[in-house]
Amino acid sequence: MYRTHTCGELNLRHAGQTVTLAGWVQRSRDLGGMTFIDLRDRYGITQLAFNMETNADLCSQARKLGREYVVQVVGRVIERSSKNSKIPTGDIEIEVQELCLLNESRTPPFTIEDQSDGGDDLRMRYRYLDIRRNPVRQNLEMRHRMAMLVRNYLSDRDFLEIETPMLIKSTPEGARDFVVPSRMNPGEFYALPQSPQQYKQLLMVAGMDRYFQIVRCFRDEDLRADRQPEFTQIDCEMSFAHQEDVLDMFEGLAKHLFTEMKGLQFDSFPRMTWHDAMRLYGSDKPDIRFGMQFVELNEVVKGKGFGLFDAADLVVGICAKGCAEYSRKQLDALTDFVKRPQVGAGGLVYIKYNLDGSFKSSVDKFYTADDLRRVAACFGAAPGDLMLVLCGPAMRTRVQLCALRLEMAQQMGLRTPDVYAPLWVVDFPLLEWDEETQRYYAMHHPFTAPKPEDEPLLADPTRWGDIRANAYDMVINGVEVGGGSIRIHDRTLQNQMFHTLGFSDEQAYAQFGFLMDAFTYGAPPHAGLAFGFDRLCSLFGGVDTIRDFIAFPKNNSGRDVMSGSPSPISQEQLDELQIRLDKKN
Amino acid sequence: MYRTHTCGELNLRHAGQTVTLAGWVQRSRDLGGMTFIDLRDRYGITQLAFNMETNADLCSQARKLGREYVVQVVGRVIERSSKNSKIPTGDIEIEVQELCLLNESRTPPFTIEDQSDGGDDLRMRYRYLDIRRNPVRQNLEMRHRMAMLVRNYLSDRDFLEIETPMLIKSTPEGARDFVVPSRMNPGEFYALPQSPQQYKQLLMVAGMDRYFQIVRCFRDEDLRADRQPEFTQIDCEMSFAHQEDVLDMFEGLAKHLFTEMKGLQFDSFPRMTWHDAMRLYGSDKPDIRFGMQFVELNEVVKGKGFGLFDAADLVVGICAKGCAEYSRKQLDALTDFVKRPQVGAGGLVYIKYNLDGSFKSSVDKFYTADDLRRVAACFGAAPGDLMLVLCGPAMRTRVQLCALRLEMAQQMGLRTPDVYAPLWVVDFPLLEWDEETQRYYAMHHPFTAPKPEDEPLLADPTRWGDIRANAYDMVINGVEVGGGSIRIHDRTLQNQMFHTLGFSDEQAYAQFGFLMDAFTYGAPPHAGLAFGFDRLCSLFGGVDTIRDFIAFPKNNSGRDVMSGSPSPISQEQLDELQIRLDKKN
Repeated sequence: MYRTHTCGELNLRHAGQTVTLAGWVQRSRDLGGMTFIDLRDRYGITQLAFNMETNADLCSQARKLGREYVVQVVGRVIERSSKNSKIPTGDIEIEVQELCLLNESRTPPFTIEDQSDGGDDLRMRYRYLDIRRNPVRQNLEMRHRMAMLVRNYLSDRDFLEIETPMLIKSTPEGARDFVVPSRMNPGEFYALPQSPQQYKQLLMVAGMDRYFQIVRCFRDEDLRADRQPEFTQIDCEMSFAHQEDVLDMFEGLAKHLFTEMKGLQFDSFPRMTWHDAMRLYGSDKPDIRFGMQFVELNEVVKGKGFGLFDAADLVVGICAKGCAEYSRKQLDALTDFVKRPQVGAGGLVYIKYNLDGSFKSSVDKFYTADDLRRVAACFGAAPGDLMLVLCGPAMRTRVQLCALRLEMAQQMGLRTPDVYAPLWVVDFPLLEWDEETQRYYAMHHPFTAPKPEDEPLLADPTRWGDIRANAYDMVINGVEVGGGSIRIHDRTLQNQMFHTLGFSDEQAYAQFGFLMDAFTYGAPPHAGLAFGFDRLCSLFGGVDTIRDFIAFPKNNSGRDVMSGSPSPISQEQLDELQIRLDKKN
Repeated sequence: MYRTHTCGELNLRHAGQTVTLAGWVQRSRDLGGMTFIDLRDRYGITQLAFNMETNADLCSQARKLGREYVVQVVGRVIERSSKNSKIPTGDIEIEVQELCLLNESRTPPFTIEDQSDGGDDLRMRYRYLDIRRNPVRQNLEMRHRMAMLVRNYLSDRDFLEIETPMLIKSTPEGARDFVVPSRMNPGEFYALPQSPQQYKQLLMVAGMDRYFQIVRCFRDEDLRADRQPEFTQIDCEMSFAHQEDVLDMFEGLAKHLFTEMKGLQFDSFPRMTWHDAMRLYGSDKPDIRFGMQFVELNEVVKGKGFGLFDAADLVVGICAKGCAEYSRKQLDALTDFVKRPQVGAGGLVYIKYNLDGSFKSSVDKFYTADDLRRVAACFGAAPGDLMLVLCGPAMRTRVQLCALRLEMAQQMGLRTPDVYAPLWVVDFPLLEWDEETQRYYAMHHPFTAPKPEDEPLLADPTRWGDIRANAYDMVINGVEVGGGSIRIHDRTLQNQMFHTLGFSDEQAYAQFGFLMDAFTYGAPPHAGLAFGFDRLCSLFGGVDTIRDFIAFPKNNSGRDVMSGSPSPISQEQLDELQIRLDKKN
C-alpha cells in the first residue's frame, strides 16, 4: 500500500512512530516559518507540518501543492502544540520527512467542504468531486452499512438472496417499461423489470420458501421531483406465512435497522386500517410524529346558514395547538397554500380560540360564540389554539386537509428528522376505481389476495369498491418505505381477479400465462413485501431527497449530466438491431 | 406460520411433540393398512404416516394426494420402526392427526428427483419445478452463501458496496452494448453496462478508496455455449494499492471462500507469467491440477529428414504418463480430435515408450530408437509413457497442444472437480495485435497501466507487442475466475494509450471524456479486479455449466423459454419511443 495508516486513525498513542500517509490536500496554511497541510482521505483528516527552518526544500515543495493534489508523505507522529478537539486526529500532526506528489489537480469547480459553494447542477456534473464531500460520502457509507445489516438479518432468518433476470418480458399492465431491443431476435424486445414480482412468486412456487434481493428496478415514468428512472428495492417473499408473520418479520428488520443505525428501540409498531388513515389523516401514509388528527364537523356546523358548509359532503378540520396568534398575513398565506393548484381547495375557514377565551373566525357572520365553542369542543381545543377547516367532497377534502396538516406541522416544527414514528397501514382496498378509463384497477397489483371474508363480494360488481385486501404498507414519518400483500395462490381466484380487472382469458394468459401455469403445479400460500431502499436510506439520513443517497443519480429529465447519457448511438448499432428512429419533431 | 417446524429438522429429540408441517408431496406409498407420504420442503423430507385402521377417513384423504400437492399436517412425532439413515429426519415419522390440502398440482412434466427424467428444454420451460430438485436448489443456496461470504469479507476490510447505474452511456469500444431507447429524450439511448469499469474508477477519483459491488453486467454477444447475455460480477477497486496489495487482498478472499465453503486450506497461490503460461501450457488460464507441461523439441527432432518437423516453427509435445498401452483406435481418435476444426492441427505424432524399453512411433521412418530416446529424455519420460507431439507456427501450435493436453487429462481422470489448483497469471501483454483490423487492441482494457519499466517502449511502435501490463488473472482449474489490473491514473499516459489504440483526441474524448476530465482533478493511484460470479459458483459447485447456478437463465438464443422473452411490443410502445422496426427479412 502507498500508506501505513489512514488519515483518520492516528492519535497520541502513535506519537513517535514513523508513518506513511496518502491522500488529498484539503487546505494549506502558510505561517511563514511553518506550513501546515490538512491531508484528507475517506477516513479523516491529518495535519502535516513542514518547517522552513529545518527543511526548507521540503517546505517549499509543500507550498506549491494546490487544493486536491494527491500526495504521499512519510513522517513522524508528534503531539500538536495547539490541539483540535473537533477531529479524532486533532491531538497530533505529522512532521513530514518525505513528500511525493502522486497527482496534480486542476482547481475544483466548487469547494470540497461540508457546505459547498457548488449548485446542484455543478455538483452533479462533477459528481466524483461532490462525493469527496463528507455529507455525500457519509450517505454512501450509511447506505452500504444498511444494505449489509439487511442482508445479514434476512440471511440469518433463512432468507436466500436470489438474483432474478434484468432482461424480462414486457407487460403492459402497470407503469411504462423500459425496453431493450433484441439483436438476436429482431423485432422483439426485453423489458427491464419494474420489480421482480413475478419471479419472486415463481421462486415460492419453486419451493424456495424465503427469498430476498436488493435489486435494481426500472420505471419509465415522467419524472416528478425526486423520482429516479432506476431505483433499488429490498424485495422479499415468504411461503407458508400469514400476514402476521410477514408484519412481524419486517417490523423486526426495521427495528434492527433503527437499533443498529440510530440506537433507537421501539415497541410494536402501531397499526391503522387504510380506512382510518384516510379518515383521520387524509392519507394512506400518515405522518404520526404529531397528532392533529382530522375532526369531522358535519353535525355541529350544518344548518346555521353557512351555505358552503351546508352544501358540503364533508366539513373537516384540524386543530393547531398554540397557533391562535397567527397574524392575518399568516392566515392569508395558509389560504393561498390550500388554494394552490397542487392542493386545490376552494378556501380555508379559520377559528381562533383566543387566550382570553373569545373566538375569532372567518365565519363569525354565521356562527355564534356558543356555536364555535361547540366546534372547539369537538377538536378538544383550548384557548390559544387555531382551528382550520375545509369542506367539499369527502375524499378530495381529506386529501387537501392532509396537505394543510403537513404544512402546519412544518411551520410548527413538528416534522423533526431525528424523531421516527413508524406505522403499519393495513387493510387496503383491493380495487381502485379509475374515472378516466371507467374501470377498476388493482390498488396494489393483480396478484394481491382479497381478505377471505370479503371474497364473496367479488360476485357483486356494485360492492367491488368495498373489498379489502390483505395488503399492508410500512410508513415512517409520512413516507411509505415498504409495502406488500398476501398473494393469491389459487388459480381460480386469480382468474376471477383478472376478470374483475377487465382482462379476457386470452389477455390474462398472454401477459401472465407462465405465472398462471406455475400456479397449477402446487403453489404454496405466500406473501411478500418490498422496501424502497433509496427512500429508506434518505429517511435514515434525515434528508428528503433520495438523490443524495445514490452515487450517480439522474436528473429530472432522466439524464446523467456527468457522462452525457442517454446519447445518440451509431447507425451501425441501429442497423444491427434492425430498428429505425422515427422522431416526431 | 402454516408450520411449527420445517421438514428438515425433526428427530428423536422431538418424539412425542405435536407439530405442524407444510410442504409438497414428494411420494406416497400405500401399504394396505398404512399410507406413508414423504413431505418435502426446502429443508428436507419428513415421513408422514396415516393408519387405515385407526383413522380411515384421514388415510383415505391422504391416498388421494398426488405428487407435488401442497399440504399442511398436524401430528405427533414418533420413532420410526424402520429407520432411514440417509436423511437427518430418518429416525422419526409424523403420526398425522389433521390434514389440510393447501393446493393441488397437475402432474409435473418431469420427476422432481435428483436425477430427473426431464431434458434441458423441458426443465428450463418449467424452471420453477426444476428448482424444486435438490441439485438446483442447492446450487442457488450455495450461491447465496458465497455472496454473503464475499460481502462480509470485503465489508470487514473497509470495502463499501456502492451501486452504480444500470442505464449508462453507450461506448462502442469492447463488446456490443445492449441499448435502451429513451422516451424522454427521443432518438437517444442508454446502454446497459458491460461492467461498471468507468464508474468504479470515478469512485476512486471520488476518494471512496475501497469499492465493491456484486453487480449484473450485460453483453450482447452471439452466445456461445454457456454464455449468458446477463451475468454477475464481483467488481472491486482499491486506491493507493500496489499490485501486490491487490493480489494479497483477493487471494485472501478466495482462500476465505475455499475455507468456508470447502474446508480447504491453501498456501500462497503460485504465480506464473503470461509468457510462461503460454510456453508451458499454451493457455493464459492453465489447468495446473496436473503437470503435462509442454516440452519444446526443435533441437532434438530437426534435421533428421522429417520434413514436417524440419519446416515447422515449433515442435512441441506432452508426455502422458502410463498411456503407452493406448490402442491404434485410441490414437486415431486423438488424431481426429486435434484435426477437428475447433482445434485445427494438421496431424499428431505419437511416440510410445513401451514397458520393455522399446519405442513405437508414427515417425519411426525418420527417427532411430536412439533419436527417440533423446526425445524421451527431454520429456523425462519413463517406460510405459506416451508422448504426443504437434508442430507448426509457434502460438497456434501451443494452443492446439493445450486442447490435446486437456483432452488427455480428461481421459486420464486428472480433471477431478473436487481438487482445486488456484494460480495467478501475471504480466499480461498490454496490447494485442488484431490481424483483421491491422491494429493493436488493449488486451485487458484501455485503462490498464503498462509496467513502469516497459513504459518507454510506448514510444516505439515496433515494440508495442513486448509491453507488459500490470494485469493479472486468477485462474482455478483452468478457469479464469477473475482478472484485473493497475489502472492508469495519469492523464498524459492515458492519452498516450488512447493514441496507441488508434483513437484521435476527439474520439477518445467523445467516449471517455468524463473519465479523462475526472483524472485532471486529483486521481489517486488505483487498481482493481473483477470475478465472474456465475463461473466462480459453478467452479465451487464442481459443475461446468454456469446455467445451473442462475435461477432463471436464458438459452443460447438469449431467450427465456419460460416467460417467452424477448417478445414483440405494442405499436403504442414503439410510437412513444419514436422508433420503428426495420426488419431485414
